[in-house]
Amino acid sequence: MGEELRYHVDGDLVPASEATVSVDDRGFRYGDAAFETLRAYGGTIFAWDAHFERLERTCEALSLEHGLTAADLRNRIDETLVANDLADAYVRLSITRGVQPGKLTPQPDVDPTVVVYANPLPRGGLAGESVWDEPATVETVTTRRVPDEAIPAAAKTHNYLNGILARAELEADADEALMCDLEGHIAEGATSNLWFVRDGELYTPTTDGPVLPGITRKIVRDLAREAGIEVHEGSYEPADVHGAAEAFLTNRTWELRPIATLDGHTVGGGPVTERLARRYDERVERTCYE
Amino acid sequence: MGEELRYHVDGDLVPASEATVSVDDRGFRYGDAAFETLRAYGGTIFAWDAHFERLERTCEALSLEHGLTAADLRNRIDETLVANDLADAYVRLSITRGVQPGKLTPQPDVDPTVVVYANPLPRGGLAGESVWDEPATVETVTTRRVPDEAIPAAAKTHNYLNGILARAELEADADEALMCDLEGHIAEGATSNLWFVRDGELYTPTTDGPVLPGITRKIVRDLAREAGIEVHEGSYEPADVHGAAEAFLTNRTWELRPIATLDGHTVGGGPVTERLARRYDERVERTCYE
Repeated sequence: MGEELRYHVDGDLVPASEATVSVDDRGFRYGDAAFETLRAYGGTIFAWDAHFERLERTCEALSLEHGLTAADLRNRIDETLVANDLADAYVRLSITRGVQPGKLTPQPDVDPTVVVYANPLPRGGLAGESVWDEPATVETVTTRRVPDEAIPAAAKTHNYLNGILARAELEADADEALMCDLEGHIAEGATSNLWFVRDGELYTPTTDGPVLPGITRKIVRDLAREAGIEVHEGSYEPADVHGAAEAFLTNRTWELRPIATLDGHTVGGGPVTERLARRYDERVERTCYE
Repeated sequence: MGEELRYHVDGDLVPASEATVSVDDRGFRYGDAAFETLRAYGGTIFAWDAHFERLERTCEALSLEHGLTAADLRNRIDETLVANDLADAYVRLSITRGVQPGKLTPQPDVDPTVVVYANPLPRGGLAGESVWDEPATVETVTTRRVPDEAIPAAAKTHNYLNGILARAELEADADEALMCDLEGHIAEGATSNLWFVRDGELYTPTTDGPVLPGITRKIVRDLAREAGIEVHEGSYEPADVHGAAEAFLTNRTWELRPIATLDGHTVGGGPVTERLARRYDERVERTCYE
């Protein structure tokens, strides 16, 4: 890619270096915005319906009625991919409450700001390589996940300081910060859901706690069940992972990424992680290439 | 003011309608930014030292080393006031972590984005009128204040969804949403600190809880002590305010604003509130006009 990337801002494709929003935009002033991180494989957005549905739930939580259809948003994404000649890409879709009169109190009349970011991201999958170089070094941090009573964890918003404070605690060589809830149960990584394996069965923190209902999380859960692997969603502590047979993280970008160590305890991937990663790749293959 | 306002963005004065930040700015992507709300009275920023000190504490909490001096920031603010020919104004100063390579994890090398907003705001004070029309209608909401373990309340950041969700719960005619902490003790309003009076003594929630250490809060506390009024900082519940003799809110813009009703219970201002408001006006007068 010799040419500058172009982003889609409020209906126009503009060079990334000229892609801006007003300083009065509520997305900038308050982080008053919803977003989704997506992947394009072979030019097709993976699991679009699930992403759009979660975006709608985020906007409901924020009382943000943007008035845009799934088709309109998908069009903007597809136009962005075409304009950048991208087949395999990281895509981010952000919708803000735009500029409104008055100060903090949100107004029902919304002229949303819509931004589509796209960056090349080589495909993993059957024939490809993962975007991560190595299994993840993970550390439990003291920053606790924001409880649902303050901001619902199911809402994926531009208020991302909680995860930034968590990441800022990490040693330089660590990849992900694992946050617990206020009671000390594992919630999630700053940008990932956590899984571990014991006696061939799969465990992941329940979304009854402050845990984002990850779309990759849901797909992995479904793939595990299809493969006859028992899946438990419950309340766990870091010690449960320290002694696990396998552990991995999931998110849209990493897909499945084994945890090399948690707090210095060696864990690593293994047969269950590999089996699920293979099935995930096959799902991508089937969905985006056939 | 027939002419368009000008904001100060990264060292340049630009028309407000052209004041923008990159969509890649971390202030937009994540709300990864510190801010202060200030008032200018007669062309002078009130309590600048206290604002700069709090800004520094916020930046420390965010590990955001912006490298700018107090004098530099104050210059940008003063230039903005002069450019807009503003003597009495609302001013907002925002500093973001700017654009950085990589994704969420903050990098130590910061090229900050600095924005100064200014809007005319008539002076209250001895000879003026308050910016609010009437005492505030306040409602306790179900949204709980984010606990310090997740994001320190002392950090004044662009992650303002907690307050927005609180405000979104309000009836249309209400002015402020009162948030409690997770245990049900009063924390603060979405943009204000709360005070109440019983038996001639003053009560306000302690900053040991998730409560912004408001600069107006500190000034009012000091003024009360100077006036021989006993000040208690502790843990209180909404019922304590329902039965109070007087109650009021403080923030930079409202200064002191009596609470007409909390959850439908009539409270109102009174002699203590009026005495403190008068002393506050005198402080402004002394600091900015002599």
